Amino acid sequence: MPESQTNLSWDVLLDLSGPAGARHERLAGALRSAVRDGVLPVGTALPPSRKLATDLGCSRWLVTQAYGQLVAEGYLEARTGAATRVSWSPGRDERRPPAARVAAPVPRYDLAPGVPDLRAFPRRRWADALRDVLTTMPHTEFGVPPLGGHPRLRAVVAEYLRRCRGASAAPRDVTICAGVTEGVTRVCRALAARGVTAVAVEDPSWGRTRQAVAAAGLTVVPVPVDEDGVRVDLLGGTRAVVVTPAHQFPTGTVLAPARRAALVAWARDVDGLVLEDDYDAEFRYDRRPVGTVQGMAPAHVALFGSVSKTLSPALGIGWHVLPPAWTESYQAANPAAATPSVVDQLALAAFIDQGGYDRHLRAVRLRYRSRRDALVAALATHLPDSRTTGVAAGLHLLLHLGGAVDTGALVRRAAAEGLRLVDLAAYRSTPPEEPALVLGYGNLADNAVLPAVALLASLL
Amino acid sequence: MPESQTNLSWDVLLDLSGPAGARHERLAGALRSAVRDGVLPVGTALPPSRKLATDLGCSRWLVTQAYGQLVAEGYLEARTGAATRVSWSPGRDERRPPAARVAAPVPRYDLAPGVPDLRAFPRRRWADALRDVLTTMPHTEFGVPPLGGHPRLRAVVAEYLRRCRGASAAPRDVTICAGVTEGVTRVCRALAARGVTAVAVEDPSWGRTRQAVAAAGLTVVPVPVDEDGVRVDLLGGTRAVVVTPAHQFPTGTVLAPARRAALVAWARDVDGLVLEDDYDAEFRYDRRPVGTVQGMAPAHVALFGSVSKTLSPALGIGWHVLPPAWTESYQAANPAAATPSVVDQLALAAFIDQGGYDRHLRAVRLRYRSRRDALVAALATHLPDSRTTGVAAGLHLLLHLGGAVDTGALVRRAAAEGLRLVDLAAYRSTPPEEPALVLGYGNLADNAVLPAVALLASLL
Repeated sequence: MPESQTNLSWDVLLDLSGPAGARHERLAGALRSAVRDGVLPVGTALPPSRKLATDLGCSRWLVTQAYGQLVAEGYLEARTGAATRVSWSPGRDERRPPAARVAAPVPRYDLAPGVPDLRAFPRRRWADALRDVLTTMPHTEFGVPPLGGHPRLRAVVAEYLRRCRGASAAPRDVTICAGVTEGVTRVCRALAARGVTAVAVEDPSWGRTRQAVAAAGLTVVPVPVDEDGVRVDLLGGTRAVVVTPAHQFPTGTVLAPARRAALVAWARDVDGLVLEDDYDAEFRYDRRPVGTVQGMAPAHVALFGSVSKTLSPALGIGWHVLPPAWTESYQAANPAAATPSVVDQLALAAFIDQGGYDRHLRAVRLRYRSRRDALVAALATHLPDSRTTGVAAGLHLLLHLGGAVDTGALVRRAAAEGLRLVDLAAYRSTPPEEPALVLGYGNLADNAVLPAVALLASLL
Repeated sequence: MPESQTNLSWDVLLDLSGPAGARHERLAGALRSAVRDGVLPVGTALPPSRKLATDLGCSRWLVTQAYGQLVAEGYLEARTGAATRVSWSPGRDERRPPAARVAAPVPRYDLAPGVPDLRAFPRRRWADALRDVLTTMPHTEFGVPPLGGHPRLRAVVAEYLRRCRGASAAPRDVTICAGVTEGVTRVCRALAARGVTAVAVEDPSWGRTRQAVAAAGLTVVPVPVDEDGVRVDLLGGTRAVVVTPAHQFPTGTVLAPARRAALVAWARDVDGLVLEDDYDAEFRYDRRPVGTVQGMAPAHVALFGSVSKTLSPALGIGWHVLPPAWTESYQAANPAAATPSVVDQLALAAFIDQGGYDRHLRAVRLRYRSRRDALVAALATHLPDSRTTGVAAGLHLLLHLGGAVDTGALVRRAAAEGLRLVDLAAYRSTPPEEPALVLGYGNLADNAVLPAVALLASLL
């Protein structure tokens, strides 16, 4: 009876062997125990009575009787036109304390940085791309996925990075992975295998970057950032550094030309590795984005990118371009590293290759620019004593509040009012000289800009 | 001109500044350099002439002249109704040796184990599930995905494992990841952080399992398997073991009841951890699958599973259930661990919850059983001196060939004839007593069974 095997538990679970007579009692008892023991948790749909009767080799009457009894006892719940479901929660679940509620209340206005406009996700076009792939991909592509990513996406990403980011990338140097954090961790594992114990990270920086370095067992060494970007002259003693040259996070500065040259010279001097996080280079509003440092020194720079800021972090697709000399250490340190779904990889490859990605970027760039303009204008009106920097690019800006503001207290007061703010201090190893907030506007609804700023002003 | 920024490189790339006159010459020169330098690799589509003219602020005539010249010179290729594309490969690419061709020729008959029927992937239903999710999910779900997996899929998997695998799993104990290999590596990192240096692994075993343990920096200790499964009495000295109790890979034995009890007792004695790889438990043909060992001792067993053998390894979705006491070490050792696409996670949750997964399993189980029957019958006819074991479950069987066969030479001879075979010795730390092949039939087309066996027989 292979048809009954998937719900294999029904006839094993509901053991009706034993003396004949009152079989519906025994069925009810077995069901009751299963619910009591938590084997059938609240909400579980029971099979239609006709189906269960076939599986158990008994009459349908017997099943409806048993269901009826348990409905009367409060174990099950029957609704016309829907499956009969378990409605009782066993005491056993209470033996362990209930899980802590991790879900914080959703703020009315969320100004935390790092998230793109989630309303702008191209749902229909992404679904179309997925369906196209699922309709046309050869069945062999459903097999064990190629390590390092699907060759099609590697080629498309390599071309994209050459064309749009001035990178030097051959498909074989591109690895597809879950995102920048995952990629940095993997490259750091290769660094660790080569004897590197510490990695310099810009200060301030994105917390996940520091986490990614630490996850590989390496020590994070903070390196200051000034108005020209990372202080290359203070890198002495390390052989690897994570930087955000196109748009420093969170200060928004662009690595100055002389610093770029100095960074490359440093990497060559110490035979080191620059980890270039190209995290939101696609969004620059005043002029063309600067190209990657990787394009200047592909032998000493690992380039990281993803669709997290352009499409959605929920897709879990990113890439990195490694210097060929690092390939072997990388593979040895990450021997069975996972890749995103091949279906997703092929959908993204088609989306980029057929121009959908470029069109999406063009559309959201316009949105972000006008939202940034609205935010800057509202801040100038409602907080005339404040100052904004880092507004030329990206999905956030820095709001400098002047000497007297206790930003920690402000963030807490704001949270109580449903306004989520992030203190610049949260990204720094030491408190900033001047109190400042990092205001993300990527995912702020257009009609929320004014009330959010007004609320912020009322709290100062 | 934000419209021109996505193809930002076109006007930066094709620098037309300088003295006036013969601008189309300059445009052609810039294009030529870009192709020569590899900036525009073979196959790159150039923008339509009208679009490029707008971007560059020049006349369309100028662009068509430049395109035409480069077509004449062999750099570009124009086809009516399609984009003009780069058709020339620069010498620069040759500076590095071409990548080794890793793609082996596709065998006519592939009997390697570990792959399900790739023709059976439910393409349309999976595309429907993805579209449903993309149409209905709240936009907030496109944000940073929850660590450990989406709560919806964690709950559905927990229920599935309780219902179908006799597991003891609360949603909070379930982690969604890319698959069993990824999961085992992560748990091994937690073991390493707690001071474990060696992990016992069944001998023979799946190579990826050993790789997963080694990837966490741990030593693999082989432990023999006999007809009752893993030799628990030989586990002394280790505190962790990876096992396949439902269907040992590749011998196909089921861990005997006494051994199950002994394994649990061992884990309690040494305060150790059993890593239970439940890799193809869904496919048992003679009776109901045995439940998981995890259900007997949830405090000492980590349970691993995935859709790799039920749907496709290309989806990259798996899960594990950890003892609560291990949660903290796990999270500390894998602080920013990636999850599969939230869209895929929600699609799988709906697919399981709405019965599509059960229906799929029911359908393919019938397919596999009849294919197994055909394979066993063909082997009995064509290789009457051989013997098969491990046929009661899974997607492969063991073919014992008797004392005189050199399986290594057989595998090579077969490969030359387009028949892919895997020697049992490939999964063992020491050669087996009797030569045997591991024959996978999951992805063998029904009409290939007879010719594949006839070919195998002709080679013996």
